[in-house]
Amino acid sequence: MMIIMKTDATKEEVANVIKRIEFYGLGAHLSEGSERTVIGAIGDGRPVQQELFLHMPGVDRVLPISRPYKLASREFKPENTIIPINGIRSGSDQVLIIAGPCSVENRSQMMETAYAVKEAGAHALRGGAFKPRTSPYSFQGLGEEGLKILAEARDATGLPVVTEVMAPEQVALVVKYADVLQIGARNMQNFPLLHAVGESQKPALLKRGMMATVEELLMAAEYILSHGNRQVLLCERGIRTFETSTRNTTDINAIPVLKSQTHLPVILDPSHSTGKWDYVASIARAGIAAGADGLIVEVHCNPGEALSDGGQSLKPEKFADLVCQVRAIAEAIGRTVNVEGCL
Amino acid sequence: MMIIMKTDATKEEVANVIKRIEFYGLGAHLSEGSERTVIGAIGDGRPVQQELFLHMPGVDRVLPISRPYKLASREFKPENTIIPINGIRSGSDQVLIIAGPCSVENRSQMMETAYAVKEAGAHALRGGAFKPRTSPYSFQGLGEEGLKILAEARDATGLPVVTEVMAPEQVALVVKYADVLQIGARNMQNFPLLHAVGESQKPALLKRGMMATVEELLMAAEYILSHGNRQVLLCERGIRTFETSTRNTTDINAIPVLKSQTHLPVILDPSHSTGKWDYVASIARAGIAAGADGLIVEVHCNPGEALSDGGQSLKPEKFADLVCQVRAIAEAIGRTVNVEGCL
Amino acid sequence: MMIIMKTDATKEEVANVIKRIEFYGLGAHLSEGSERTVIGAIGDGRPVQQELFLHMPGVDRVLPISRPYKLASREFKPENTIIPINGIRSGSDQVLIIAGPCSVENRSQMMETAYAVKEAGAHALRGGAFKPRTSPYSFQGLGEEGLKILAEARDATGLPVVTEVMAPEQVALVVKYADVLQIGARNMQNFPLLHAVGESQKPALLKRGMMATVEELLMAAEYILSHGNRQVLLCERGIRTFETSTRNTTDINAIPVLKSQTHLPVILDPSHSTGKWDYVASIARAGIAAGADGLIVEVHCNPGEALSDGGQSLKPEKFADLVCQVRAIAEAIGRTVNVEGCL
Amino acid sequence: MMIIMKTDATKEEVANVIKRIEFYGLGAHLSEGSERTVIGAIGDGRPVQQELFLHMPGVDRVLPISRPYKLASREFKPENTIIPINGIRSGSDQVLIIAGPCSVENRSQMMETAYAVKEAGAHALRGGAFKPRTSPYSFQGLGEEGLKILAEARDATGLPVVTEVMAPEQVALVVKYADVLQIGARNMQNFPLLHAVGESQKPALLKRGMMATVEELLMAAEYILSHGNRQVLLCERGIRTFETSTRNTTDINAIPVLKSQTHLPVILDPSHSTGKWDYVASIARAGIAAGADGLIVEVHCNPGEALSDGGQSLKPEKFADLVCQVRAIAEAIGRTVNVEGCL
Repeated sequence: MMIIMKTDATKEEVANVIKRIEFYGLGAHLSEGSERTVIGAIGDGRPVQQELFLHMPGVDRVLPISRPYKLASREFKPENTIIPINGIRSGSDQVLIIAGPCSVENRSQMMETAYAVKEAGAHALRGGAFKPRTSPYSFQGLGEEGLKILAEARDATGLPVVTEVMAPEQVALVVKYADVLQIGARNMQNFPLLHAVGESQKPALLKRGMMATVEELLMAAEYILSHGNRQVLLCERGIRTFETSTRNTTDINAIPVLKSQTHLPVILDPSHSTGKWDYVASIARAGIAAGADGLIVEVHCNPGEALSDGGQSLKPEKFADLVCQVRAIAEAIGRTVNVEGCL
Repeated sequence: MMIIMKTDATKEEVANVIKRIEFYGLGAHLSEGSERTVIGAIGDGRPVQQELFLHMPGVDRVLPISRPYKLASREFKPENTIIPINGIRSGSDQVLIIAGPCSVENRSQMMETAYAVKEAGAHALRGGAFKPRTSPYSFQGLGEEGLKILAEARDATGLPVVTEVMAPEQVALVVKYADVLQIGARNMQNFPLLHAVGESQKPALLKRGMMATVEELLMAAEYILSHGNRQVLLCERGIRTFETSTRNTTDINAIPVLKSQTHLPVILDPSHSTGKWDYVASIARAGIAAGADGLIVEVHCNPGEALSDGGQSLKPEKFADLVCQVRAIAEAIGRTVNVEGCL
Repeated sequence: MMIIMKTDATKEEVANVIKRIEFYGLGAHLSEGSERTVIGAIGDGRPVQQELFLHMPGVDRVLPISRPYKLASREFKPENTIIPINGIRSGSDQVLIIAGPCSVENRSQMMETAYAVKEAGAHALRGGAFKPRTSPYSFQGLGEEGLKILAEARDATGLPVVTEVMAPEQVALVVKYADVLQIGARNMQNFPLLHAVGESQKPALLKRGMMATVEELLMAAEYILSHGNRQVLLCERGIRTFETSTRNTTDINAIPVLKSQTHLPVILDPSHSTGKWDYVASIARAGIAAGADGLIVEVHCNPGEALSDGGQSLKPEKFADLVCQVRAIAEAIGRTVNVEGCL
Repeated sequence: MMIIMKTDATKEEVANVIKRIEFYGLGAHLSEGSERTVIGAIGDGRPVQQELFLHMPGVDRVLPISRPYKLASREFKPENTIIPINGIRSGSDQVLIIAGPCSVENRSQMMETAYAVKEAGAHALRGGAFKPRTSPYSFQGLGEEGLKILAEARDATGLPVVTEVMAPEQVALVVKYADVLQIGARNMQNFPLLHAVGESQKPALLKRGMMATVEELLMAAEYILSHGNRQVLLCERGIRTFETSTRNTTDINAIPVLKSQTHLPVILDPSHSTGKWDYVASIARAGIAAGADGLIVEVHCNPGEALSDGGQSLKPEKFADLVCQVRAIAEAIGRTVNVEGCL
C-alpha cells in the first residue's frame, strides 16, 4: 500500500508512519514529492487493515497497490480454468448454454421445459427449488420436492442440473441432486454460504450481486477457491444503476474486464440483466460478441403463467432462435456453440 | 395494478387483458384515454406477478398501485411502534444511542470500551462476534467466545447488547446472549435469516443493504413482521453511489421518507454511512436533526489498532463530544437524549 | 396521468382532484379499488405539471402514462429514420463507422490519422476542435484553426467530418466546416445549444449524458426535432455507476431499448464507454451484436502522446482489426459493413 | 502520480517508464515491492495526461497523488472565504438563507412571494428568468422581462437577487440585474459558461451536477476561480442514485467533505435534493446540523399552481416554520441565523 501524507505533514508524523509500517513486519519506502511525501509499504499488506493509518496524524489517504484477491487472479494462474459440463469445456472456445425456468413449479412444467430446452440446444438445465423472493407473500419454491423433479428431468434428458443453494445448511441436501451449485446475487456476500460451497466438490456458478463491483465478485470467488473448490464459474447478471427502462443494467464491460483479470469462466445471464424478454436475445448476442464463455437463460413454456420472473422468460421457440443467433456470433469470432439444426 | 396498453393495441388485445385480470379474481376497470387505454385491476393484486402481463400482446407497461408491504406500513398501523431498550422508549421522543466496537477482539478491549461508552452516555452496547468480511484473509470474529465476552460486558455495565447474527442456524445461539439481534446490510435479503429472526422474540435491528431501496428495506422488515416478531428497528447505514469521497453515501432523505411510510423506529449509523471518523459527528447531528430515532456509532479505545473498521471508529472522548452535540440538536427540535454531564 | 389517492382520502378530496383535472381541460375518470381510489386524467397531459397534484390533500402519488416525448417516438413514426453519411444509409442495414482522434492537435497528426482511418475502413472522420475539459489546466482545443484542419482532412480523404459544438454562438461557425454536429455528453441538457442545433440543417450526433436516462436522451432529441432538424443520431457512450474498473459503464441494454422506442439511428462509442483501449474492440463487437447502427471510435497514430483521451485511443492497426471483427459480427446477423480488405 | 507496474513487468519496461517520466520534466522514484514495482513521478504532474502511461508495456495502473484542483483547496487557502450578501457574512458563523420561487412567472406572483419570504426571514431572493427545462413543451421562463421583475422585487424588499445564467452570451445581460449569478446543475460542466462567469465580478452560486463527484464540483469551481472571480458559493442539491422514493438523494456527507477540502462556503438546496415539499424542512435542518453555511429554498405562495417545481415548493407559512427550526439547530451548534420573530 501507499500512504499519502498531507501537504503540511511534519517529519515526526512521517517517522511515526514508518514506525507503524515496520511494526507490521513490512518495509517502508519514502518518496518525497514536490507537494507531499508518499510512503510505500513493501511486503504482503493484505492482512493489514489499511484504513488504520487514517487515524495517524499527517496522513491524508491510503491507496492499495496489490489486488486483494490472489487465487482468482490471472497473475496467479495465467491459463484459463476449464470446467467440463456435459461435454462442453467451459472456459475454452466452446460456449456453454444453460436454460430453464426460473422456478420449478411442478413436475409437468419442469419436464416439458427440460425437453424443450434440450431440443433447442441447451447444454444444461436451470431451475430453482429454493427461491429468494423479495416478498414474503410470493411463491417460495418447492424445496426438496423441486430438487427431486430436477433430478428426474436430468435423468430423462441427460442435461446436468444447475440450481440455487440459499443457506449453508442446505448445501448437503442440494449437493445430492445438483450438478452445479448456484449462488444467487443476493447471497454473493453470504460468507458462511461461500465457505460451505467452497468445501463441496461441485462446480459453483457464482452470480454477481447487483450492488457488487467486479473486485468484490472476485473476492467472493476467492472465498470459494480458498476453501478448496477450484471450479467456479462467474456470472454477470446486471447491476443496479439510476436507469429504469430495464430492470438492471447489463455491465457488458465486466466481460472483458473479468476475462483479463481472472482465469475463471464468465457466464452472462441476459434474462436478469434486462428483465424483459424482448431484449434477451439482443443482449445474449452482445455477451458472446464481447467474449463471454456462456449464457444462462430463463425459458418457460408458458411465460404468461410462470410463478416467478415470467416477464423475462422466453418461450422455447424464441430460445431456439437465440441459440442459432448466438452460434452465428460465436463462429464470427472463432468460437463454437455445439448445437444442431440451425440453418 | 394498472396495465398501460400500447397506442396501437386492438380491442381484442384489450379484451384479453380484461379476461386475464378476471381470471385472477380481480375486477377490471377500463379507462380509454386520448392516446391509449389503461386497464385497472381492482382487488388485492399482491399475490399476482404483475410482470406476467408483459407477455400479452398489446401491453406496453404495468404499474403497481398498492405498496407491496402491509404490516410495515403506516397506513396499516398509524401510531409509532415503541421498542423499549434499557429504559429508552425507542420510537418515542427519546433518542436511543448505541455504541461500541465493530468487532469483539478480546476481553479487555471489550470491557474497556463498554465502560467508556457507558460513561459517555450510550444506552446500549454494540460489538460483533460473527463478522461478515469481504476478504477470506481478514479477521472473522471470535464466534461464541465473543458472545460470552459481550454478555460479561452487559453484566458489568448494565448496557444491553446489540450483536449481529449471520445465518439462520446461528439464531438460537445468538439469542442466548444478545438483547437485540442485528441483521447486517449484506444479509438484508437473506430470506432464511429474516424468517428465523422473525420467529424469535428478540427485537431486531435491520440494516439497509447498501444497494437496497427504501421499499426493499420495508419488504425485508415485512418478512420479519409476518413471521411474528413485531419489534423491528430499521437502520440507514449509507448506500452505494458513484461518489467516492466517502465509503458510502448517507441517504439522509431516507429518514423523513421512512418516518412517513412506516411506524417502525429509524436508527442512523453514521460510522458506516461515512466510513471516516472525522465525518461521523457531523452526520450524527444531521440524522437527529432530520428526525431519526437513534444512532449506532462505532467506538474503539484505540482505533489505530482495531481489527476491523478502525478508520471509521471514534475514540471515547470524541464519542462523548458527539453525544452532547446530539443532545443539543435533539433538544432544539423538542426531543430528549437521556445523558448526564454535558455542559 | 394517473393520480393515486391515499388509502384514507375523503370523498371531498377526490372531488377536488377531479375539479382540478377538469380545470386543465382534461377529462377525469374514477377507478375505486379495494384499498384506494385512482383518478385518470384523459387528454394530452404533457403541458400540465403533474407534480402540482402532490400539493392537494389526499393525493399519494402521481404516475405519468404518456411518454413525455412525441416526435422522437416510434409510436409517432414507426419506420426507421435513415440518415445518409458518405453513402452509408445510417439507420438501415448498413453499419456506419466513424473514427479519428479525440482532439485535433496539429495538421500533421490529423492528416496522418485521417488517412489511416480511411485505409482501415472508416466512413467518417471525428476530431474535436473545441474540447470540454474538466480541468482548466488541460489542452482546450485549437478552435477555428482545428476546424480548418478538419476541413482539409475531409478534402484530402473524402471522409465527412463529425465535430463537437459547445455553445449556441459557435453553431454558425462549426456549421461552415462540419458535416455532422456533435453534441457532447456534458451538453446533452444544454437547452440553448439543442435549440440552436435544431435550427441548423446539419445532421446532429447527440451523445447521452453520463447521468441521463434513456428517456432524458429522447427528450433532448425532442428539443432538436421540435426546432426543425429531423436528422438526429443518438449515441450511447457509457453511464456513471458505482463500478470503477472501467471509466464508465456501457449501457448495452440501451441499444435494444432505444431501437424499440425510437426511429432514430443509434450509435455506440466504445472508447468513452470503457475508457481503456484494450476493452474497445470487445465492446464494439457487443454493440453491433446488440443491434447498434454504427460506432464512433477514438484512433490516434501515437496514443501514448495524445493531448487528450490517449488511454482509450486505438492505434490504426488495432482499429483495422476492430473493423474486420465488427464486419464479421454484422454479417452474422444479416447486416453489412462496407469495407474492403478483411480476410 | 504513481505508476503501478504489472507483476511480470520486465526491467526494460520499467526503464522505459522512467524515461517517459523524465521526458515530461518530472523526477522518477523507484519502489520495488515484493509483488510489483511502483514508480513515483516527482513534480507537478497536473499538466501531464496520466492515462497516457496505460499504453506503455508493463504498466498496470496509474494513481494520481495530487488533487487536480488548487485554488479551490483548503491546502492552498486554509482560512474560510467569506462572501458578504445583504449583511450576512457567508462562510462565517452566520447562516445565509435564500428563498423564492423556482421561476418568475409574472409581476404579482414575484412581488407577493418576495414580501412573504422577507417577512419569514430570508436574506436573499431566488427566482429563475431563464429556465433549463427537460421538455421543449414546458414553460421556458420570461427572459429579460423576468430579470426586470426580479430587480423591482429587490428594490421593493431590499433583498439581493440570485438568478440563473444559462449561456456565456447571457452573462452580460444577467449581470445587469442580478446580485449573485447562479450556475445550474445541468451547466456545472458548461465550461464556456464557467469561463464567462469567472470573468465577471459578481459572486457565483455553483450548483453541483446531479451526477458530479465532489472532486468534479471543485474542478468546476477551479474554472471560475482561475479566471479571476474568487467569490464562489458551492451548492449541494442532491445526486442521482438508484433510490426512487425521492427525486434526488441529498448527499449530506458532501457537507463535511467540502468543508474539510475547500475554503469556499457550502449551501444546501433541500428543495431539489428531495423534490417533495414535505421532506424539505427535515433536510434543511439536517444540512445546518451537518455544517452547511446556508440554504436555498423554493417558496411559492400558491404551489399548487406554480409553473415549475410546484411539488417541491413550500408555502410561506411552512417556510417561516423552517426558518425558526433552522435557527434553533444553528444555535445548538454555536452558529447564528439572523432572523426575528421565532418564539
